[in-house]
Amino acid sequence: MKINTALFGFGRIGQMHADNLNHHQSFNLKYIFDIDKKLKSKVRKYPNCQFINNYKISLADKKIDLIFIATSTATHTKYIEEALRHKKYVFCEKPLDLNLDKIIESKKKIKKNIKKVQLGFNRRFDPGHADLKKYLVNNKIGKLEKIIITSRDPAPPSIQYLKSSGGIFKDMMIHDFDLSRFYLANDPIKEITATGSNFLRMYDRIKDHEIASVIMKSKKGVIVVINNSRHASYGYDQRVELFGTKGMVISGNKHINETELFNSSTTSSKKVLPNFFIDRYQDAYKLQLDELSKLCNYNLIPRSTFDDGLEALKLAEAAIKSLKLKKTIKL
Amino acid sequence: MKINTALFGFGRIGQMHADNLNHHQSFNLKYIFDIDKKLKSKVRKYPNCQFINNYKISLADKKIDLIFIATSTATHTKYIEEALRHKKYVFCEKPLDLNLDKIIESKKKIKKNIKKVQLGFNRRFDPGHADLKKYLVNNKIGKLEKIIITSRDPAPPSIQYLKSSGGIFKDMMIHDFDLSRFYLANDPIKEITATGSNFLRMYDRIKDHEIASVIMKSKKGVIVVINNSRHASYGYDQRVELFGTKGMVISGNKHINETELFNSSTTSSKKVLPNFFIDRYQDAYKLQLDELSKLCNYNLIPRSTFDDGLEALKLAEAAIKSLKLKKTIKL
Amino acid sequence: MKINTALFGFGRIGQMHADNLNHHQSFNLKYIFDIDKKLKSKVRKYPNCQFINNYKISLADKKIDLIFIATSTATHTKYIEEALRHKKYVFCEKPLDLNLDKIIESKKKIKKNIKKVQLGFNRRFDPGHADLKKYLVNNKIGKLEKIIITSRDPAPPSIQYLKSSGGIFKDMMIHDFDLSRFYLANDPIKEITATGSNFLRMYDRIKDHEIASVIMKSKKGVIVVINNSRHASYGYDQRVELFGTKGMVISGNKHINETELFNSSTTSSKKVLPNFFIDRYQDAYKLQLDELSKLCNYNLIPRSTFDDGLEALKLAEAAIKSLKLKKTIKL
Amino acid sequence: MKINTALFGFGRIGQMHADNLNHHQSFNLKYIFDIDKKLKSKVRKYPNCQFINNYKISLADKKIDLIFIATSTATHTKYIEEALRHKKYVFCEKPLDLNLDKIIESKKKIKKNIKKVQLGFNRRFDPGHADLKKYLVNNKIGKLEKIIITSRDPAPPSIQYLKSSGGIFKDMMIHDFDLSRFYLANDPIKEITATGSNFLRMYDRIKDHEIASVIMKSKKGVIVVINNSRHASYGYDQRVELFGTKGMVISGNKHINETELFNSSTTSSKKVLPNFFIDRYQDAYKLQLDELSKLCNYNLIPRSTFDDGLEALKLAEAAIKSLKLKKTIKL
Repeated sequence: MKINTALFGFGRIGQMHADNLNHHQSFNLKYIFDIDKKLKSKVRKYPNCQFINNYKISLADKKIDLIFIATSTATHTKYIEEALRHKKYVFCEKPLDLNLDKIIESKKKIKKNIKKVQLGFNRRFDPGHADLKKYLVNNKIGKLEKIIITSRDPAPPSIQYLKSSGGIFKDMMIHDFDLSRFYLANDPIKEITATGSNFLRMYDRIKDHEIASVIMKSKKGVIVVINNSRHASYGYDQRVELFGTKGMVISGNKHINETELFNSSTTSSKKVLPNFFIDRYQDAYKLQLDELSKLCNYNLIPRSTFDDGLEALKLAEAAIKSLKLKKTIKL
Repeated sequence: MKINTALFGFGRIGQMHADNLNHHQSFNLKYIFDIDKKLKSKVRKYPNCQFINNYKISLADKKIDLIFIATSTATHTKYIEEALRHKKYVFCEKPLDLNLDKIIESKKKIKKNIKKVQLGFNRRFDPGHADLKKYLVNNKIGKLEKIIITSRDPAPPSIQYLKSSGGIFKDMMIHDFDLSRFYLANDPIKEITATGSNFLRMYDRIKDHEIASVIMKSKKGVIVVINNSRHASYGYDQRVELFGTKGMVISGNKHINETELFNSSTTSSKKVLPNFFIDRYQDAYKLQLDELSKLCNYNLIPRSTFDDGLEALKLAEAAIKSLKLKKTIKL
Repeated sequence: MKINTALFGFGRIGQMHADNLNHHQSFNLKYIFDIDKKLKSKVRKYPNCQFINNYKISLADKKIDLIFIATSTATHTKYIEEALRHKKYVFCEKPLDLNLDKIIESKKKIKKNIKKVQLGFNRRFDPGHADLKKYLVNNKIGKLEKIIITSRDPAPPSIQYLKSSGGIFKDMMIHDFDLSRFYLANDPIKEITATGSNFLRMYDRIKDHEIASVIMKSKKGVIVVINNSRHASYGYDQRVELFGTKGMVISGNKHINETELFNSSTTSSKKVLPNFFIDRYQDAYKLQLDELSKLCNYNLIPRSTFDDGLEALKLAEAAIKSLKLKKTIKL
Repeated sequence: MKINTALFGFGRIGQMHADNLNHHQSFNLKYIFDIDKKLKSKVRKYPNCQFINNYKISLADKKIDLIFIATSTATHTKYIEEALRHKKYVFCEKPLDLNLDKIIESKKKIKKNIKKVQLGFNRRFDPGHADLKKYLVNNKIGKLEKIIITSRDPAPPSIQYLKSSGGIFKDMMIHDFDLSRFYLANDPIKEITATGSNFLRMYDRIKDHEIASVIMKSKKGVIVVINNSRHASYGYDQRVELFGTKGMVISGNKHINETELFNSSTTSSKKVLPNFFIDRYQDAYKLQLDELSKLCNYNLIPRSTFDDGLEALKLAEAAIKSLKLKKTIKL
């Protein structure tokens, strides 16, 4: 039986999810909800899918199993709560919210059904990044000692987006905080120090950071370094390195193809990196749906939960505090 | 308007094509024909698609635009001829046939509509291999002087398959003959010398070759070297190198992901190569369908035609002759 | 005219320098001084070179142009001062000293002749690391925004050595502090935060760190991240990454040769990294001598000076302070 | 005791050998003989080395152990014969001669002392290429099935040189014929087919080939493919691939350093390849001397012998014959 799904939010990321849900054999995309009525025409390409302007229609529909939330961040917890009240399964895009208190409050309300929520930390599902976890679990690199994550967007989003993004730590590094926690598993982060830097004045004006780095330390002593940038001339730079007592594993950048050019000024010159997350994490988004189908069908705890969303935001908050106070923050 | 399609042949490769056609937005998979009735149940997963045991039903259906042929090789020309007689577009898997005379005979019959046929030389559509062509056309490597193709299957097919395959040159190297012609464009092959070698006796018994190499020379003097093997312990090895006056481009192997392991005995150790063509040429098979939709919708001449199928087989025949006579064959 | 040279210190690094001086066309190795008389026999292989147990002999010899200091750290400044008093040129191994005050005191004494001293920060001369500087200066990556240095020794030195080493920041990361300054040029480090971690108890006992990371920020806003480890199962790991507005350059690890193995469990498997600095920085040590010959012959200011030794130690001291106080240290 | 050496021939390659002999701890360079008296001044930099215009002086000198021949090709066998008559050890650059009969004649004369001759097939000593042999011998790739060698010079030599070079097969591919034999060990080449091609008319005029390829087959069935070019825009291209039942090993190109550039039009862009054999095979030339010292000191049979020079030339002759007759030549 297919999982009857209502998608909330039909912007750029919502449209990608709609395509993926439509192609996936386990899901039946029944409703697409968006407040922007102009998007209605774009729904036509999904057979048997209805555009709704009032999300409550889908909540009231007993046949709907799953609410898939890709709306603006501030609405996430509200929709999660309502969906769970209507006994639906929930998928929610990251971040849960920009306000930590609001998430903690929300958590209390949904306590009983919190296991029915999967959070959209797509990078945990990337074949390369996920493979590092396997190397680690299978003891191929011994005891974990260090994690280094480099994550650079090809170009900054619009200034409008940036202003309401919550800043580089909550908007962008949130992924890397989560990925660190994915590898650390039961070993919690205990302290964090953050630095940021601006070269274009625009970032000063909106009180954000163009590039940022943090060093964290886990309870067991693992050091985690994260390097972020809002721009990278050569494309979407996504690398993870795990260093352990017996070895090191690296998940490197994907290229759009495996061609190399050799001439009088270069050798082994490869193509620029895929530009942007929809291309780079194409497989991850699909594998994330596989996991979601297991949650809906068998109640299997997903690789990425509501609590993961909460904990990642705590780290982002601590980073912001560290940068402000110029000191290491204990967690 | 979607292109109404009947798929002929529902074996391994046919099933892959069915999935791809089903996912592609331009095609409507209406019929699947196979002589093996046991395959009927597998058709259920394609909505609105009917399994037929008599292919003529689909030919008679006026709504059908395209016959997609993935049956056993010996039936290809027959189905092409019938499909064209019924005014359908045709996609046909490689090779056209193992018998050159039969193809030439068939060509006479379909002369008028030959442009409605696309041939399944999928490698021409591989993003990497196709990119080499762009480098060449855009003069990034100057005048072409040499082509080196390495193509090794991960493991030999069953002996039953091998016996009826037509041998390594017609079954396997046919792809590489075609790829050479793709890069050479208007510069025809003028001579060819072939070598083969066996290490397992099995190949002697069936009068085939375990590994084989050819050197060809084009009218303009380009030297083409092709290296084939029926096995490769490390996976499906697919590499192309174009060497020109101003540079060289290489289309290298794809890996299942971009992880690398470093330990006390290895560094930069990557995963084994994808095993096998369905994984390695996944993108190529999809891009091939894009081209096919343009043929059906706009009569655009496809990148890979009936004549390409014919010419590749001529090279295979010449290779076989060269190996038998131990001399260079002029074309 | 060859530069008549007296080498002070004939331990492991001293013996390497002796070989290099002996092979280099610009130097004439006349004396080797060491307090350990047992080393005398090893001097025989250098023609016309005399082993001395009293270094003053070489200082008194008017024909000696250069004192090359590779003795234990604590003796460095003393020998520098004496050599300059005797109007010699001086090469001194890193670090200058473990005691910052002592260096500052020494600097006052040698002020007038300080330009006759070259410091042994060999990595500035590594062809790869030095090439990054050229990319930067030639504006190939735009304005510098970030430096990431990964530096891991293959295995820790003896516990005896560790105890007197001054700790990971003064003994090991000193190289990376210097390399950062090399790329930053006129842009001084303004703040630093350090973290360290131990997994083996031994490091706790000697109050040192097994792995360590720092984040620094320059006056212009460049963020510098350094990652150190006392061990690396796969060899001596030496990587530098410069990230700028227009591009990124990486100086990667060297391998002992360019072979790659492909089999049923790995592809592109390379050899382990060279083990250890004498092999890895073989070229750098030789190019350092070229620079030294220019200092002695033409008074050209060397790429690595007494002040560089002083500034690097200041950063090491600040890192130690940051780690102790758990806060960011302003410089 | 050092090996007292007389170097015959002080051209480009001779000067490189002089430097290497001078630096090597086992050799004592006593005489340099060249017919060009103007070269005398260049000998000064080698201490205790005498320039001679009459090579017989060195043959008559009882203290001389080794005659190192780097003169023009046509003089090689004559000097070998004379040197052996004077009971010297001999090193001789490749090729032995361009005339097969002359070599066979010479072989008869030196039969008794032929083991005292080492031939200059430097590539057998390259750390990468030699490592492939170790992989093979240690059964890391199973039974050898295929050898693919790509060897391209960065730019053609002068037309004067080309005219007297003996052509691409004797002058350039001779190295690759030898390298094939090195890997094949006791498995002789049984057949060969050759192709050549010209794009610049100059090569037609001198009856040589700009690019050339051969396919050979050994007694045990190993297929060997060699690809040569007189030019390569990206530098000196030197690659070897061994393919076996259990795996594949590749000896790839060396780069001048390990830097990579990433910007808006390229990623992983490496430096051009070293330009030319003196740089690329620097290590090989030194390791060749180590082997030579073992021949002179312990009569150890060298990795590369007079017979290897003879056999390689036989293959070159067969290639030329194959190309002329347009057929496969049996050996």
